Amino acid sequence: MNDVAGGSSEIGRLVVGCEDRPGIISAVSKFLYDQGANIVDFDQHSSGAPEGKFFLRLEFELQQLAARKNEFSTSFSKSVAQEYEMQWALTLLEDKPRVAIFVSKFDHALMELLWLVTRNVLPIDVAMVISNHEDLRNQVETLGFRFEHIPVEPAKKAIAEETAIELLRGQTDLVVLARYMQILSEEFVNQFPNRIINIHHSFLPAFAGADPYRQAYDKGVKLIGATSHYVTAELDQGPIIEQDVVRVSHRLSVEELKQLGNEVERKVLSRAVRWHVENRVIVDGNKTVVFTK
Amino acid sequence: MNDVAGGSSEIGRLVVGCEDRPGIISAVSKFLYDQGANIVDFDQHSSGAPEGKFFLRLEFELQQLAARKNEFSTSFSKSVAQEYEMQWALTLLEDKPRVAIFVSKFDHALMELLWLVTRNVLPIDVAMVISNHEDLRNQVETLGFRFEHIPVEPAKKAIAEETAIELLRGQTDLVVLARYMQILSEEFVNQFPNRIINIHHSFLPAFAGADPYRQAYDKGVKLIGATSHYVTAELDQGPIIEQDVVRVSHRLSVEELKQLGNEVERKVLSRAVRWHVENRVIVDGNKTVVFTK
Amino acid sequence: MNDVAGGSSEIGRLVVGCEDRPGIISAVSKFLYDQGANIVDFDQHSSGAPEGKFFLRLEFELQQLAARKNEFSTSFSKSVAQEYEMQWALTLLEDKPRVAIFVSKFDHALMELLWLVTRNVLPIDVAMVISNHEDLRNQVETLGFRFEHIPVEPAKKAIAEETAIELLRGQTDLVVLARYMQILSEEFVNQFPNRIINIHHSFLPAFAGADPYRQAYDKGVKLIGATSHYVTAELDQGPIIEQDVVRVSHRLSVEELKQLGNEVERKVLSRAVRWHVENRVIVDGNKTVVFTK
Amino acid sequence: MNDVAGGSSEIGRLVVGCEDRPGIISAVSKFLYDQGANIVDFDQHSSGAPEGKFFLRLEFELQQLAARKNEFSTSFSKSVAQEYEMQWALTLLEDKPRVAIFVSKFDHALMELLWLVTRNVLPIDVAMVISNHEDLRNQVETLGFRFEHIPVEPAKKAIAEETAIELLRGQTDLVVLARYMQILSEEFVNQFPNRIINIHHSFLPAFAGADPYRQAYDKGVKLIGATSHYVTAELDQGPIIEQDVVRVSHRLSVEELKQLGNEVERKVLSRAVRWHVENRVIVDGNKTVVFTK
Repeated sequence: MNDVAGGSSEIGRLVVGCEDRPGIISAVSKFLYDQGANIVDFDQHSSGAPEGKFFLRLEFELQQLAARKNEFSTSFSKSVAQEYEMQWALTLLEDKPRVAIFVSKFDHALMELLWLVTRNVLPIDVAMVISNHEDLRNQVETLGFRFEHIPVEPAKKAIAEETAIELLRGQTDLVVLARYMQILSEEFVNQFPNRIINIHHSFLPAFAGADPYRQAYDKGVKLIGATSHYVTAELDQGPIIEQDVVRVSHRLSVEELKQLGNEVERKVLSRAVRWHVENRVIVDGNKTVVFTK
Repeated sequence: MNDVAGGSSEIGRLVVGCEDRPGIISAVSKFLYDQGANIVDFDQHSSGAPEGKFFLRLEFELQQLAARKNEFSTSFSKSVAQEYEMQWALTLLEDKPRVAIFVSKFDHALMELLWLVTRNVLPIDVAMVISNHEDLRNQVETLGFRFEHIPVEPAKKAIAEETAIELLRGQTDLVVLARYMQILSEEFVNQFPNRIINIHHSFLPAFAGADPYRQAYDKGVKLIGATSHYVTAELDQGPIIEQDVVRVSHRLSVEELKQLGNEVERKVLSRAVRWHVENRVIVDGNKTVVFTK
Repeated sequence: MNDVAGGSSEIGRLVVGCEDRPGIISAVSKFLYDQGANIVDFDQHSSGAPEGKFFLRLEFELQQLAARKNEFSTSFSKSVAQEYEMQWALTLLEDKPRVAIFVSKFDHALMELLWLVTRNVLPIDVAMVISNHEDLRNQVETLGFRFEHIPVEPAKKAIAEETAIELLRGQTDLVVLARYMQILSEEFVNQFPNRIINIHHSFLPAFAGADPYRQAYDKGVKLIGATSHYVTAELDQGPIIEQDVVRVSHRLSVEELKQLGNEVERKVLSRAVRWHVENRVIVDGNKTVVFTK
Repeated sequence: MNDVAGGSSEIGRLVVGCEDRPGIISAVSKFLYDQGANIVDFDQHSSGAPEGKFFLRLEFELQQLAARKNEFSTSFSKSVAQEYEMQWALTLLEDKPRVAIFVSKFDHALMELLWLVTRNVLPIDVAMVISNHEDLRNQVETLGFRFEHIPVEPAKKAIAEETAIELLRGQTDLVVLARYMQILSEEFVNQFPNRIINIHHSFLPAFAGADPYRQAYDKGVKLIGATSHYVTAELDQGPIIEQDVVRVSHRLSVEELKQLGNEVERKVLSRAVRWHVENRVIVDGNKTVVFTK
């Protein structure tokens, strides 16, 4: 991101996905030029034959973009997007998406997000924290955020989800599962397509089943990691946004492996959320294109 | 490793594994003291209750150790090892284990090892390279190493393994599978318990089945890695020695993922071999204790 | 760390530094054996001729160690430490050192420490936070910690330091400078030899002078990092405890480089503090031996 | 890079640097569209006010590009480049730049490059290896490469450089200094502006003067690294292309630090050369923009 000379020039971020064919970049860039915009960062990738997908993320400066956003969008839609059947989105640098964070009892991933917000280094607006337990209320409210307790009884999951959807309606651009230990129904997931981000541990090799850190310990793995992904109806199989690992040794107990795993989860989830809200992630079927810095 | 004052002082490496109980360190260190040895590096770990395993690696200086090695070993066995029912090994810094490298057609892992040997930075003596194909003969022989072609016909695998065992007999302290694409029989593996090192790719999440790099590409993983492990009768499930990963992006083709994966395999396998020959790895059931630097 | 069988067995950590000579390990381990202790982790290193320094860190289990600590220490001193002229320290796993954190206006390093304490994953007791500004009072007190404002007027630095020393007297085992922008006098530093930990940015190549992130940006470095070290009278030249780096690109502004630098500082400082309080760091002249996990 | 459908379609890489102003992307992309090209990867960055530099790298597919390259270039120059006063370059994926590698006695960086070429994973054509010593002749010639010995007498450096320039004339697109221990004159450097790549060690903090690994050891650094940069008249101050580090511990001797440093140098130099020959590096004054994958 660059400092912009001139007080009223604003930064927009345009993200585009469509079938690849010649002329798209030319059409998009000509449109922006005609609008008086100056492109400052442009990142494009085509997945090549046979898939032939086109992905683009660009940042541009434009005088009074916030005021002109609707007009700009309508015009872009008519002049460019329709012809190429684009999926696209326009956000402003100054936008702060409204985020609802779901959590159960583990606090590390949740608190990392809240702290980054508190320190003004993660540009989101935390609409609320929703938990199926009361445990973290105090930590959340102390920092000045809203906490909602929605208990989940096994037999009445649907009711809990309806309560949550009711709370979220019109309040939420993104749902983040910061170690929420309930499986969301397909109905819930479909309310927020590619707008629910989850975090889970991951290991080389992968361990299915209960107590994966115990399995990792028993197997003597040398790396433990975490994966952040969009949630789809298929459990933990949605498009991966970010992954990272940390090196471990035989000196570490199962409990210490968990603690190190938590540190990786903090980092990976916060990076995934940042990239999502900076419009850096494009979903391509069951994978992502991530235009990182 | 330290510079040693005095020409005739030599470095020994003692590795010990046994049931944990009080007094072991005291017994070992008293023995060394009585022998006139000076311990320069001592790394010990107990796995704690309930397993209660004791693992130790130490380096010591002793005048004329090479000449006294047999006498030293006999004495250690009687004075210390028997009482604690130790599994133990003593090697000298100057020892160069004899290594046979098995390979099929991929050259990267093999050549990294040969180059490190050529440059005198990996202390092994390459007894021979064995391949089920002729493809790499020229590369190997150009560097001055012995190449043996042992074709493997599917129906006659046992014969090929017997030929290999015949070649290796009395010539080999360690077998390294540097992308050898044949599955070794349990009989073969049992000839070299914890003395066969393999390398394979690994991913988060793990992909079983054919063409894993294609699967990784299709899934859009952000990290690809490699795992080096001892070979046991259960395919690719032996104790892990070393793992590493490299970050990848959507810009990379399947072919490029493979190339990056090869680079990680080069690094991970050569590290695992180095640690084995420096007596840094102790096998503990199905895991390892690795006393790295 | 190991699970300990038996409720009243406690974990002690013994750290030793002295001139190297044969017999030290034997003497230490025999003493522990005679006391009824079981060593569970033992890490030793000698720096070799010509320096010839001996460094040791070990963890042991001993029944009722807390109650017997004084007696144990006296006995160790007489039986072992005096003969070898050891510098040594004994701490218990359950000990929580009292830490005073100094800070100016940047909150990231301070808050990471406070959050880790709040989440019970960093075993320290934060005695107080001392700042030359009022800015961070609210953040600190909200989390329930004590905040002391000691303004520093350029002409009256000595007075401010005296005030601080008065506050710290008898209350503090460790001082952490979490981006404290005042240079401490030699008199202050000498009050806490090897017990003041600082964090600062670092770059490849190094940039002296003002605004180092601007210099790093202008030079186009590909890595930015942080270094945590003990404070000595010579500014930023004390023994290094821990360092780390993060990869950066041309897309990042000076401001974004600073933010990433802050993230590395959070991680590096908290790791250095953890290693110090776990008795993992031994100072050897102007360098450290760090027995990491 | 993508698999291309259709045998006669070829991949071109266009790199552009100029003053930033609106309309550049539009002009470039329209030109390519008019030529019948399909852009498959497009990476652009503007450095923002006040510098206001525009940098672009793109890959495109075009039928029979190799045959049409001159015509294409002339047309691009007239239609686009002149108007925007661009510095630009066009290369084909199939191009193999001719590289001369200078070396003294350390073999690690040189051999890594030769091995990558031998294995067909680094797309360069090694025109010759030039050394001021005979030591590495055998290693180089064994792999089938040309070796030229140009001794450098301190009083007659200019003569040696003239000899080298004579050999390189018309044979060399890039000079790589793979641990060449002679300082090149400004006259020599000016013959190859931004086309000489060097590698050297780097440390946090930086150590000037002799024997930097000894200094790093004495200082107890926890990371050692390497920096690859373009050579300018000012020693080791040219634009940085790539950097990396490796973690080290107190257990490593000066000699072992050097070996690990060598491993980092191998990796960093080969990455820098790859990025240069793939046209990924744009020099911007004394820094670089690197469009990595």
